[in-house]
Amino acid sequence: MNSSMPDSIHEWAEKVLAGYRRAVARAISAVENREPAGVALLKQVYPSSGRAHVVGITGSPGAGKSTLVEKLAGDYRRSNLRVGIIAVDPSSPFTGGAILGDRIRMQSLSSDDGVYIRSMATRGHLGGLAPTTQDVVSLLDAAGCDVVFIETVGVGQDEVEVARLADTTVLLLVPGMGDDVQTFKAGVMEIADLYAINKADRGGAERVEQEVTAMLSMSPRPDGWRPGIVRTVATSGEGIPDLRKALEEFRAFGQKSDLRQQRRREHGRARLLELLRQTLFEKVAGDLLEDGRFEARLDDVLAHRRDPHSVVEEIVAEWT
Amino acid sequence: MNSSMPDSIHEWAEKVLAGYRRAVARAISAVENREPAGVALLKQVYPSSGRAHVVGITGSPGAGKSTLVEKLAGDYRRSNLRVGIIAVDPSSPFTGGAILGDRIRMQSLSSDDGVYIRSMATRGHLGGLAPTTQDVVSLLDAAGCDVVFIETVGVGQDEVEVARLADTTVLLLVPGMGDDVQTFKAGVMEIADLYAINKADRGGAERVEQEVTAMLSMSPRPDGWRPGIVRTVATSGEGIPDLRKALEEFRAFGQKSDLRQQRRREHGRARLLELLRQTLFEKVAGDLLEDGRFEARLDDVLAHRRDPHSVVEEIVAEWT
Repeated sequence: MNSSMPDSIHEWAEKVLAGYRRAVARAISAVENREPAGVALLKQVYPSSGRAHVVGITGSPGAGKSTLVEKLAGDYRRSNLRVGIIAVDPSSPFTGGAILGDRIRMQSLSSDDGVYIRSMATRGHLGGLAPTTQDVVSLLDAAGCDVVFIETVGVGQDEVEVARLADTTVLLLVPGMGDDVQTFKAGVMEIADLYAINKADRGGAERVEQEVTAMLSMSPRPDGWRPGIVRTVATSGEGIPDLRKALEEFRAFGQKSDLRQQRRREHGRARLLELLRQTLFEKVAGDLLEDGRFEARLDDVLAHRRDPHSVVEEIVAEWT
Repeated sequence: MNSSMPDSIHEWAEKVLAGYRRAVARAISAVENREPAGVALLKQVYPSSGRAHVVGITGSPGAGKSTLVEKLAGDYRRSNLRVGIIAVDPSSPFTGGAILGDRIRMQSLSSDDGVYIRSMATRGHLGGLAPTTQDVVSLLDAAGCDVVFIETVGVGQDEVEVARLADTTVLLLVPGMGDDVQTFKAGVMEIADLYAINKADRGGAERVEQEVTAMLSMSPRPDGWRPGIVRTVATSGEGIPDLRKALEEFRAFGQKSDLRQQRRREHGRARLLELLRQTLFEKVAGDLLEDGRFEARLDDVLAHRRDPHSVVEEIVAEWT
């Protein structure tokens, strides 16, 4: 423990570890905003994290992710387990999707003390979306959540990186939504551990399942896992216990086969390197922008007297 | 000039500056792949860049961006001006859009020696999409292009950053495509210098124009520019001369009002800082991963003996 830490951080950390909702909410905000106190707090609580099952739920807008997460969370709550939910919102100006941040989400859970729900924007994270999400997962984990759901609209590189944070990733497909299994082929196959065919009471669920099965049989996973396919109707709760069972099965498989440790090692490495990239840059850029020579160099580049690559190489040589 | 540069780079640079298509194509590939030779070449040709009008064309999938760029490029070609086109392709696994990279694009231009066309994937750029695009713009500019179009599907943060590289940004809207002007409100208003209402022969162009006008009148730009609205039918070429005229008007405004210099300064600063972030990280991470202590630190983090923030702070303190 850090002896230079103010008492207030210690107290705050204890409240987070005890699961006090307001302390946790404040901690998430501090981490999201990269406040120094947020980082100090994370350092305190990090040793108590690592227990939660981190589940990524991804799929196209309109696939029913929120409803599915809400129902799954309810199922875990009935077993008296504690649940964290991080909903990554599509707030990019171009997506045209609804901005959900301010909407009251998941009403059935909002008054439940054993559930922590946080919406996060996809944009504007100083330290990057994936590292910030990872830190929020660590907080919820340390606060005693048994399972943490990360809900993402499956669009864009940032969100794929977020999906990779999870121990278990579920891809939601919906019959007849035009997102043909074919279009998902490129990058998702490696990410999805389970498929949920939601709105399965619609026609076409059979066809989607056949497509997924065919695709999976063509490219078996190197780790030997055969991704399950579960049909759900999130609105009615149909298939939710099956999906939970499938989640638990994959978790057990991951633990038995060391897959979980391998993934956590990959995530951990990526996280450390990303944090390093950010911290290095902040330190050098902070000093650099203060000493005024940066503007002179920028002038040279803008006048095409010097090229940006040479200028940056010079700066790096000076600072390392 | 760099005296340690091999002769072959000098020769290559001269060919790029003279506009030889194969030399330019090879240069773009080298820059995209961050080959050392690509960076060496950029350093050589950078002093000869800075003349081109860089035009960003952005809008939803299906808005007709490629056709519009093709027709605009043809119009510039008839004035005997040289044109570069960078088409940023939506290759994210989740978008579900067509991957255009391999499709033969812009057939009417493909045999024209005064046009350089390059498709770039949105993913997998080591140095980031925006910095790579900026480098490719510099190459095309140095190769003698009078105008460089950057065509992006307006989705995601990366692409917004790419749009910001342009001297002039055109937002394409289409009547009745459901991308209500309202949904674009958040971030695009600051980016768009001109609006093109494409497929204006469809019903609803009037309504889109009214919405844009209303929105613009509610939030006038601080620089005094009133973004023009041009109706086009790219497939037939209708409105293309008007759009070109509007582009030239904004360019003249930008030069007269110093807006162009301000923007280039902003872009230039962002580019230098991004390049610094990348170069710093590559240098430190390269050395770090070699010395083996990184894995030991990762072990500590995975075992929750140490937290990632403390570990990274320690590394940064060692290396700067």
